[in-house]
Amino acid sequence: MVETQQCRRNFISLLAFCIFYSINVLIVEAKTHYHVWDVKYTYKFPDCYKKLAITINGESPGPTIYAQQGDTVVVNLTNTMLTENVAVHWHGIRQYGTPWHDGTDGVTQCAIMPGETLDYKFVVDRAGTYLYHAHYGMQISAGLYGFIIVKLPDGVSEPFAYDHDHTILLKDWYHGSTYEEAVGLSSIPFKWVGEPQSLLINGRGRFNCSAADTASGVCNATNSDCSPYSLTVVPGKTYRLRIASLTSLSALSFEIEGHNMTVVEADGSFVEPFVTKNLYINSGETYSVIVKADQDTKRNYWITTNVVGRKPSTPTGLGIFNYYPNHPYKYPTTEPTTGPFWNDTASKLAQSRAIKAHHDYVTAPPPTSDRVIVLLNTQNLVNGIYRWSLNNISLSLPLTPFLVSLKHNFTDTFDQNPPPDTYDVENYDIYSVAENKNATSSNPIYRIDFNTTVDFILQNANTMANATSETHPWHLHGHDFWILGYGDGKFNITKDPKSYNLANPIMRNTVPLYPYGWTALRFRADNPGVWLFHCHIESHFYMGMGVVFEAGIDKVGTLPKYIMGCGKTKHMINP
Amino acid sequence: MVETQQCRRNFISLLAFCIFYSINVLIVEAKTHYHVWDVKYTYKFPDCYKKLAITINGESPGPTIYAQQGDTVVVNLTNTMLTENVAVHWHGIRQYGTPWHDGTDGVTQCAIMPGETLDYKFVVDRAGTYLYHAHYGMQISAGLYGFIIVKLPDGVSEPFAYDHDHTILLKDWYHGSTYEEAVGLSSIPFKWVGEPQSLLINGRGRFNCSAADTASGVCNATNSDCSPYSLTVVPGKTYRLRIASLTSLSALSFEIEGHNMTVVEADGSFVEPFVTKNLYINSGETYSVIVKADQDTKRNYWITTNVVGRKPSTPTGLGIFNYYPNHPYKYPTTEPTTGPFWNDTASKLAQSRAIKAHHDYVTAPPPTSDRVIVLLNTQNLVNGIYRWSLNNISLSLPLTPFLVSLKHNFTDTFDQNPPPDTYDVENYDIYSVAENKNATSSNPIYRIDFNTTVDFILQNANTMANATSETHPWHLHGHDFWILGYGDGKFNITKDPKSYNLANPIMRNTVPLYPYGWTALRFRADNPGVWLFHCHIESHFYMGMGVVFEAGIDKVGTLPKYIMGCGKTKHMINP
Repeated sequence: MVETQQCRRNFISLLAFCIFYSINVLIVEAKTHYHVWDVKYTYKFPDCYKKLAITINGESPGPTIYAQQGDTVVVNLTNTMLTENVAVHWHGIRQYGTPWHDGTDGVTQCAIMPGETLDYKFVVDRAGTYLYHAHYGMQISAGLYGFIIVKLPDGVSEPFAYDHDHTILLKDWYHGSTYEEAVGLSSIPFKWVGEPQSLLINGRGRFNCSAADTASGVCNATNSDCSPYSLTVVPGKTYRLRIASLTSLSALSFEIEGHNMTVVEADGSFVEPFVTKNLYINSGETYSVIVKADQDTKRNYWITTNVVGRKPSTPTGLGIFNYYPNHPYKYPTTEPTTGPFWNDTASKLAQSRAIKAHHDYVTAPPPTSDRVIVLLNTQNLVNGIYRWSLNNISLSLPLTPFLVSLKHNFTDTFDQNPPPDTYDVENYDIYSVAENKNATSSNPIYRIDFNTTVDFILQNANTMANATSETHPWHLHGHDFWILGYGDGKFNITKDPKSYNLANPIMRNTVPLYPYGWTALRFRADNPGVWLFHCHIESHFYMGMGVVFEAGIDKVGTLPKYIMGCGKTKHMINP
Repeated sequence: MVETQQCRRNFISLLAFCIFYSINVLIVEAKTHYHVWDVKYTYKFPDCYKKLAITINGESPGPTIYAQQGDTVVVNLTNTMLTENVAVHWHGIRQYGTPWHDGTDGVTQCAIMPGETLDYKFVVDRAGTYLYHAHYGMQISAGLYGFIIVKLPDGVSEPFAYDHDHTILLKDWYHGSTYEEAVGLSSIPFKWVGEPQSLLINGRGRFNCSAADTASGVCNATNSDCSPYSLTVVPGKTYRLRIASLTSLSALSFEIEGHNMTVVEADGSFVEPFVTKNLYINSGETYSVIVKADQDTKRNYWITTNVVGRKPSTPTGLGIFNYYPNHPYKYPTTEPTTGPFWNDTASKLAQSRAIKAHHDYVTAPPPTSDRVIVLLNTQNLVNGIYRWSLNNISLSLPLTPFLVSLKHNFTDTFDQNPPPDTYDVENYDIYSVAENKNATSSNPIYRIDFNTTVDFILQNANTMANATSETHPWHLHGHDFWILGYGDGKFNITKDPKSYNLANPIMRNTVPLYPYGWTALRFRADNPGVWLFHCHIESHFYMGMGVVFEAGIDKVGTLPKYIMGCGKTKHMINP
């Protein structure tokens, strides 16, 4: 009887401790960051030229989301545009357990209609430098983009030291609207919008206003929106710069005049440090570099970004690396650096190969894969319209999001024929213009066994123009992948895997495919849901350059109703 | 036994006849006209200036829908815009039994999302000249508009004779996008887009291209889109011209140089004929006029349209009244007519009063009404934003269409407080700028007893600018109304009804409210559904100038699921 009472007392004490401990752990380890976003069109002058931009709370780029590993982020997004829908993707956040919050229209949700509000809610499960951006139409080009910065848990530190932490977001900028671009892309004959007018650093650039445009107010060189980005540094201090690109089209180079950068992070993974004067960066990639303010403190230096990979006609994007106490807007008297030559693919490839996992943070890939999917990247005419295709299939997103179709066993909402795992390797000439007459626009998906290991081999080819092959930065949703290797020419499935880096490959979510080359990736399909893998050039994805796969759909929980409302989900309306 | 067999034979013969007759009656009396529409953005040069217009199968204005009284029209509409929704209203079609196909976003349906298709299906139950146009955002301004022409049954004729029947659709045209206009309207401070750049006749106008715009290709005076509209007539013949306006802003005058017009139809009702040199026409109105080709056959004459009601800064819209066999594009050597003076309200009012029911087609109104709703039209600031209000309520459309909310008894989707049936008549000064501090933006509805008679009294007032009161063309959905009278100043509910025209009032769906005046209407609430009554100036409606009422909601059939998908209808998704 006494023992029983004692036991009860012990039990109650333990229970009280457990409750107390749980509450504290929750408070310490799992903050919730609540953001309220009003998404609407606003006139902005990012490069001094007036444009209706899609803004978040009036700003483009939008506010940076800061959180700590394990925190929950809630973004209460209201669409206050007049007639246009929106969806926002949280780039690099894997959405374990919340695949319906990945924010990809047609894949994981119906777009958010004008006037409507959606609460995106997800856990940021690991530290690193990530992004968010629209995933509907071509709304990145219209200005809907920003940073997500996830810090390490208290008491844990990176394998590199720095005094200050700054963000630098790169963007190419068009003066025309995305409607204009889209109409041209889907026209017969095809009409290309051309190269961007400006490059923006943290949303700021400079376009050379004509007299007429100045007179009409369309261009305003004194508008505060386009005062240059200036990064003030204290002599002797060390800076972590988180550099990311969300360009619509352009691959970029990035330099800080007279300074070396040590690359230490890529897409949330620690990199075995290496030093460079120039950082190549593609749309969808993030890096951290370490820069020491160790140069002439009496002057400022240029921050420059330039187009590479396509023959540039866009002026250098300029910012100021400002040594305190010089004036932050005092231009250097030196000429801005112009970066490496635009078509020096070898140098870009060399930098890509240099990016390996930090020796203390290697996650070894599975030594073999269960399935190899080779994706031939081609450009073709489908019904007279320019499209990009993978193994002759150009992705046209279905009206009903794949996630809903698969969860609810709809079989009439997308193409039920599985897409091919390879192409006619033997006979296809990647160096010639090919007609690819069998190319179609469709929406089949890869069904991948849950928790298996899959290799994606991206194979580049000639476009529809003679002697032309482009760079494509491919981005994977819901997962990181190991980058096993890059190569020139046609991938040889017997020979090339022998050269894979299985020792210390970096894990990333975005990787370039170089002209006439191949890129080999491996990932573990361990995240239940439906996921997109696509070229991050917005117009290329609009033109079909992506594939979708499913893994573990049976493990996905009940889908929230608020992601529905489009396509066949209307058939599920039962009052 | 023989009788029984005979009876059976008779029965079978009768049955066969009935089936045969039914099939024939169906064929003769109830054709179905099936239209397939692809709604998308296309570059057009309606006034020689390049603009992305919303087109139907590549055209703006869209194709005319022709049908005969009693026919069914099906429009299979696919939205192929990139990111923008759409909804289309069938202006003047009452939608008996199909209130969910009225096409008004927020009232009778959720807008159609990109990629989706909706079959609008409705019966055109009487002959006349009607319209269709977008009813979402400000997409009329973007170019989505056209005619519906419903002919009389075979063997029935109009009370006027003519040899040929032609359509003339008037439009004001902006070079800027509706996004730009909308951003300005909802900005603090308010920013007005200004007067239209051109007036279009059947989608054709002429802007004076600058050298710079010509050089850049933005303006092309030789583009075939902007060749002038030319109406070829045979000397001595008589023409019925169906003239309609779907302007975004402008009230118009319309003339055919040197020719009289006899007005014979207004909004589908026959008019007691009267002769005029000039026809005033507001957005949402349709007329038929009879014109005889009885002038000098050796020359052509100008067709002109001019802005009235606002101080015009838009050039005269020009077309050619071409006497065969002169060249259709040979300009008259005379100066184009400039129309009546823009602010001659008395003359406009006189013409409105002249429009009465044809003496053989009078439908007498009920001598009294069951309810009188007086709507004071004011302009006010609501939360710092310019809005138009009725009795201090500025309409903000709900996320869930009213029709769905009412049919499914949702009470949390719109303002449940009934809007007021009148304003502070005694104390309100309609001639001064008033602050209207109680004005709010909301979405209550009038509940009207089914089959009762209701009077709407539209009361005009001063805007927020000194000594300014505007003309507002009000359009009623789902019904025609009798126009009982127009007056100056403040409506007096005791005195003014004595002057009502109860003898031969015209029945219409659109009516002007003149500056500092009132307009009295009567209608029978005999169409089950939820209906909008609003100013047809697109920006005014966007700024809240409308009311919604319900009548006979219990008589509305099961709503189709395909009109849903937005707002609270998502809560009804039950797999």
